[in-house]
Amino acid sequence: MQPPFLLFLGDAPDSSWAKTASGLAQWRAKDCYGQYRLPNCGADLNLPDLNFEEARAKGIKTMVIGIANDGGFIAPNWIEHIISALKAGLNIAAGLHERLEDNAQIAAVAKETGGVLYDLRRPNMKFNSGNGIKRSGKRLLTVGTDCAVGKKYTALSIEKEMLERGLNATFCPTGQTGIMITGRGIAIDSVVADFIAGAAEWLSPEADENHWHIIEGQGALLHPAYAGVTLGLVHGSQPDAIIVCHEAGRKELVGYEGYYNCPSLTDALAIHVNAARLTNPNSKGIGVSLNTSSLNDAQAKDALKRAEDETGLPACDPLRWGVGAIIDKLVVEF
Amino acid sequence: MQPPFLLFLGDAPDSSWAKTASGLAQWRAKDCYGQYRLPNCGADLNLPDLNFEEARAKGIKTMVIGIANDGGFIAPNWIEHIISALKAGLNIAAGLHERLEDNAQIAAVAKETGGVLYDLRRPNMKFNSGNGIKRSGKRLLTVGTDCAVGKKYTALSIEKEMLERGLNATFCPTGQTGIMITGRGIAIDSVVADFIAGAAEWLSPEADENHWHIIEGQGALLHPAYAGVTLGLVHGSQPDAIIVCHEAGRKELVGYEGYYNCPSLTDALAIHVNAARLTNPNSKGIGVSLNTSSLNDAQAKDALKRAEDETGLPACDPLRWGVGAIIDKLVVEF
Repeated sequence: MQPPFLLFLGDAPDSSWAKTASGLAQWRAKDCYGQYRLPNCGADLNLPDLNFEEARAKGIKTMVIGIANDGGFIAPNWIEHIISALKAGLNIAAGLHERLEDNAQIAAVAKETGGVLYDLRRPNMKFNSGNGIKRSGKRLLTVGTDCAVGKKYTALSIEKEMLERGLNATFCPTGQTGIMITGRGIAIDSVVADFIAGAAEWLSPEADENHWHIIEGQGALLHPAYAGVTLGLVHGSQPDAIIVCHEAGRKELVGYEGYYNCPSLTDALAIHVNAARLTNPNSKGIGVSLNTSSLNDAQAKDALKRAEDETGLPACDPLRWGVGAIIDKLVVEF
Repeated sequence: MQPPFLLFLGDAPDSSWAKTASGLAQWRAKDCYGQYRLPNCGADLNLPDLNFEEARAKGIKTMVIGIANDGGFIAPNWIEHIISALKAGLNIAAGLHERLEDNAQIAAVAKETGGVLYDLRRPNMKFNSGNGIKRSGKRLLTVGTDCAVGKKYTALSIEKEMLERGLNATFCPTGQTGIMITGRGIAIDSVVADFIAGAAEWLSPEADENHWHIIEGQGALLHPAYAGVTLGLVHGSQPDAIIVCHEAGRKELVGYEGYYNCPSLTDALAIHVNAARLTNPNSKGIGVSLNTSSLNDAQAKDALKRAEDETGLPACDPLRWGVGAIIDKLVVEF
């Protein structure tokens, strides 16, 4: 998708609903020139608020739908804005389940204006069933207590730190934001269910014994909606090392409040490691990643200390103090 | 799909590859008039072998692709036979991942002959994400040590026995064969991965407190390719009662020999019940279903006895001696 970008935040109640936009703003900052918000939007990425004409004047080429809703559909109240953006001469990119191309109104206007519609989530590829045969090379998978707890950021931070240390590592995106950041990968939650593990096997193919595939996790095994995706990804990834991710202070699954609690770090780690051992008997936990953005420094240090005491593994906040301690352990253990 | 049927067994090495055909022959026997086999076919459903002209002469309307391969695709060597069947005036039904409609050759000939192509696996429906909220009514799910261990037959047998006893029960098919037998249901392995649990929730909606949804299981949680489908189905089904299914004597996962063993009944039951408790904390094992077709009567009785001793639950072979003992327990426990 053609940069630079205007990030559409729509009516996201807060920044947690604008994961795709935040991910781009964080990891492709130089391509993100502005944000576009509806009046009741509660999210803010600290980018200039631009209308479509201002965006064009600044050289922006593509508006990215940077907000996700539960079904991954194009919300009816977004459509007029998408159409206005097209009419102002922008391309549109989205990583929703529902394709821009499949919306007759949007498709018609795009045809008229010549704007390109980038649908990044729906894979065009055909996958095989998983074969479960161990592949060469090493693999790290991020897993979580819930959705939206930092699995992607952690994987990106791990890759960054490993590359900086001269290690051989490749980030493998499994969701729309990772694909938008890197230009490759598969949206594993959009694969036909029978082929989840097969797609995950394809994502991290055989590699040199010293190469690490750093695989972005999805969902959570103790999540009532998305655990199937997670389990196929865990089995197909054959992870040697697992990092469990959590947002400090979160007690309940987002969107399932009143029904489902977040598991403890220990329980979340155990269920993912046990599942991984089906296809890689040597799989083990290697660290904890905590999103401590809601805490001050002292509180954050305390939260990391408690996570280390609970799990016996190094705990890091990737965006606050880096993932050095986890990499230190990784290079010793493997 | 229009009966009566000719069952296409293709080049199935043995009857385990012809699950769809065997299912129809077993549960819609009166509509199955004949079978069509290629020279190297090792499967036999004890139906008359008919060529397409003989089939038409007997009044057969539809040839059903009754064989499955791992990827769910139309094997190249089937195509000429499918085309000949169309040219003889038959309709074609299949439940493969690859649609008959999407095969240009087959679609062109069907257009020419007016033959109907029934693609039963690919759901046209859109589903929501699972909400994890407990629904009214009772649910029974069959699970397994592997694929093709009798999960569908067990569920059908349970429904039959319950209806005969005047209980309120509905079989919920989750695969192509069940859909062909009953004309409803969803092929849960063909749903977009994000919506497995949501589709399973849709499949057994709220119902009277005394109604039982009898849900056909798919795959297995300890299977390297299909466990994701299974987990979403387990979570979305919210089963009160679980029956674990196994083929007596099977030691390794079919198609994964040399790599993956079948788990014990105890292990298979435990992992499925534990998973089910995420969305239904009262879920429990209620019985064992053993396919003992490879054993003589004495051996079969012995195998069932050993299964009962191992699990502490009633064990039945549904097709040999019925599922009475499991229903006896069900009516006492719920």
